[in-house]
Amino acid sequence: MEPVNVIGAGMTSFGVLEDSIIQLAEQASFEAMEQSQTLGQRFDHLIVGSQNPDEFVNIGHLSTLLADHLGIVPAGATRVETGPSSGSSAFEVGFTMIASGYSELVHVIGVEKMSEVDRGRASKILAKMMSYENETRYGATPTALAAMVARRYMHDYGLTRNELSLVPVKAHRNGAKNSLAHFQKEITVEKVSTARVVAEPLTLFDCCPTSDGAASLVLASNRRVRDLGLKDQAVRVLGFGHGTDYHSVQHRLSMTSFGATIAAAEKAFKMAKISPKDVDVCELHDAFSILELVNMEDIGFAKRGHAIDLVKEGRTEVSGDVPVNTTGGLKARGHPTGASGVAQIHDIFQQLIGNAPIGLQVDGTKIGLIQNIGGFGNNICVGLFGV
Amino acid sequence: MEPVNVIGAGMTSFGVLEDSIIQLAEQASFEAMEQSQTLGQRFDHLIVGSQNPDEFVNIGHLSTLLADHLGIVPAGATRVETGPSSGSSAFEVGFTMIASGYSELVHVIGVEKMSEVDRGRASKILAKMMSYENETRYGATPTALAAMVARRYMHDYGLTRNELSLVPVKAHRNGAKNSLAHFQKEITVEKVSTARVVAEPLTLFDCCPTSDGAASLVLASNRRVRDLGLKDQAVRVLGFGHGTDYHSVQHRLSMTSFGATIAAAEKAFKMAKISPKDVDVCELHDAFSILELVNMEDIGFAKRGHAIDLVKEGRTEVSGDVPVNTTGGLKARGHPTGASGVAQIHDIFQQLIGNAPIGLQVDGTKIGLIQNIGGFGNNICVGLFGV
Repeated sequence: MEPVNVIGAGMTSFGVLEDSIIQLAEQASFEAMEQSQTLGQRFDHLIVGSQNPDEFVNIGHLSTLLADHLGIVPAGATRVETGPSSGSSAFEVGFTMIASGYSELVHVIGVEKMSEVDRGRASKILAKMMSYENETRYGATPTALAAMVARRYMHDYGLTRNELSLVPVKAHRNGAKNSLAHFQKEITVEKVSTARVVAEPLTLFDCCPTSDGAASLVLASNRRVRDLGLKDQAVRVLGFGHGTDYHSVQHRLSMTSFGATIAAAEKAFKMAKISPKDVDVCELHDAFSILELVNMEDIGFAKRGHAIDLVKEGRTEVSGDVPVNTTGGLKARGHPTGASGVAQIHDIFQQLIGNAPIGLQVDGTKIGLIQNIGGFGNNICVGLFGV
Repeated sequence: MEPVNVIGAGMTSFGVLEDSIIQLAEQASFEAMEQSQTLGQRFDHLIVGSQNPDEFVNIGHLSTLLADHLGIVPAGATRVETGPSSGSSAFEVGFTMIASGYSELVHVIGVEKMSEVDRGRASKILAKMMSYENETRYGATPTALAAMVARRYMHDYGLTRNELSLVPVKAHRNGAKNSLAHFQKEITVEKVSTARVVAEPLTLFDCCPTSDGAASLVLASNRRVRDLGLKDQAVRVLGFGHGTDYHSVQHRLSMTSFGATIAAAEKAFKMAKISPKDVDVCELHDAFSILELVNMEDIGFAKRGHAIDLVKEGRTEVSGDVPVNTTGGLKARGHPTGASGVAQIHDIFQQLIGNAPIGLQVDGTKIGLIQNIGGFGNNICVGLFGV
């Protein structure tokens, strides 16, 4: 397997934005190209992660359209879709293209523009990642499924409502220092616990927003890194894994653990030849607060039912020994679905090259991890990066 | 780069079909698994090529849904979209996953179910692969653009209406012997030339149908081929390329040549270290008759303006020295967009292992080529396969 390096990353603000999907992709893209000094270079491939531009903004054939707009024709161009993990899956495709020696310079963009349709329509589009036969036709929503996970987790492990609130409180504390985050305002445990209930026991502040935004990466082979003189800025891809689980929650072995994360993490750690204790910083998929705890346990950062202990002890803070979602996570950074997976890698890249926002840089970080969920827990990527 | 092998292929009938998109994918999939004796094996990844299941059949998250239906959870699952070349691009992703050593056993499915929406709606969905700003808002359709190519080609090279008709006549002659083809009835030059004009000079019989259908492949590393005892049935991927061109036809250098084909073919032939004269059989994207001639010239099978000579001399027939679209092409086999790229590889695979339909087998074929177009000439894959 040829070594694969991330040499540049770009990201727009996340939020409800005026710019079109094309403009958002362009902004993130040119920033990554500038950082990697690859403007005008011949790219072999463009990979675009986007969940549903056809229905969110009525635009099709997005990868080809962007290859033209970005001036990288005749590079091959491909859109990748795995629901909200589309950005990570797009990265995975770019990674294997370089790892195989098929490509040497690949541009990856994750983008979603969700605010052009009204909230009801957006919910309908998003609900298509769940099972119609077993879930949505009975009225289930992603939040409802997350609430079932939270309820079961509370039953099994005694997690309290106020303990769970610590997770979004941390997300907002970090987001407040990230100028690109959708939410940049701190919140309190009381505010989370007593907010409007969306699906019992989850309140409004347990749930990520729907956002617009884009993020991008430039990936290069070792030879291109040398040619560009970017060895000091190259972050190595150490490992990657991608797993699925049964489409409907009711068919799975557990409500409080995602088999797809376990499969993906096992593959990624095996490839990287490291273990969870070697990870210095991570970005986990916290579209709902309870998922951050489940993901920490599935990856191996905490024992079953004990992730909350790390949160309570401050170990998942920027200054802790297991910093989780240092830039706000999906909860505060925002969640433009196709963009989130690429934004996670953007933020890990900036951490590893010492370029995180002021107050969010983890000291002496050498190894970072991302975990991203598509569907409701059934299409999951885990990636490991190092300097 | 690790060697990559195709070890099994499956395909449904193409046409207007009763089965759901899931049922179609399942049928093609199990056929490929049976042929490759991989039913029950642990797949590393499923790659699904589908242009727009969200809008054609209102189904999202297709790759995960299929991983569950096919019983290959926890394999990673990814949908790939590049318009009507989605199937080839899905193959490309599966190919690089194995070529990198990241995966050893990958399942590729191409599927589209286009007949659930009415023709007007289908046309609107398909038109999204063109430029809105420069093309569709002025009333242009894919057929209209193909007609402009045909008119220009006739002007530049003196091609006549009756000469052009020879292309779909050959397609139907081959399709008549292919029990899976959408159209299995021969037609005459007179019938093509005098049929209802769709966009002058193209008539109804110059245009492929919109179809439902699925095709699938099983790809494996050398080690898995050995473990499965399938060395005699393994078709090697010799080379692959993927190119783009400017999104709008008006921005391109030529009306009668596709730069994306040239870029893709150059990469594929360079990787395979062979030249067009080494190819024994090929499947080219003939959604419109004129494209078969343009593609032959872009790949290097004929000099500019002279592809029709090969057709007139019978050299592109099954018995000729440059057999093109031996199973009917998109014109007669049908064109369920996301499935077509995989169906082309299915048919080349069967040719190379001597398993083509009766009357369509090319003698002593060692090397096959596929070329597949996404958008209107702006996202194109070329692949080379050998035994």
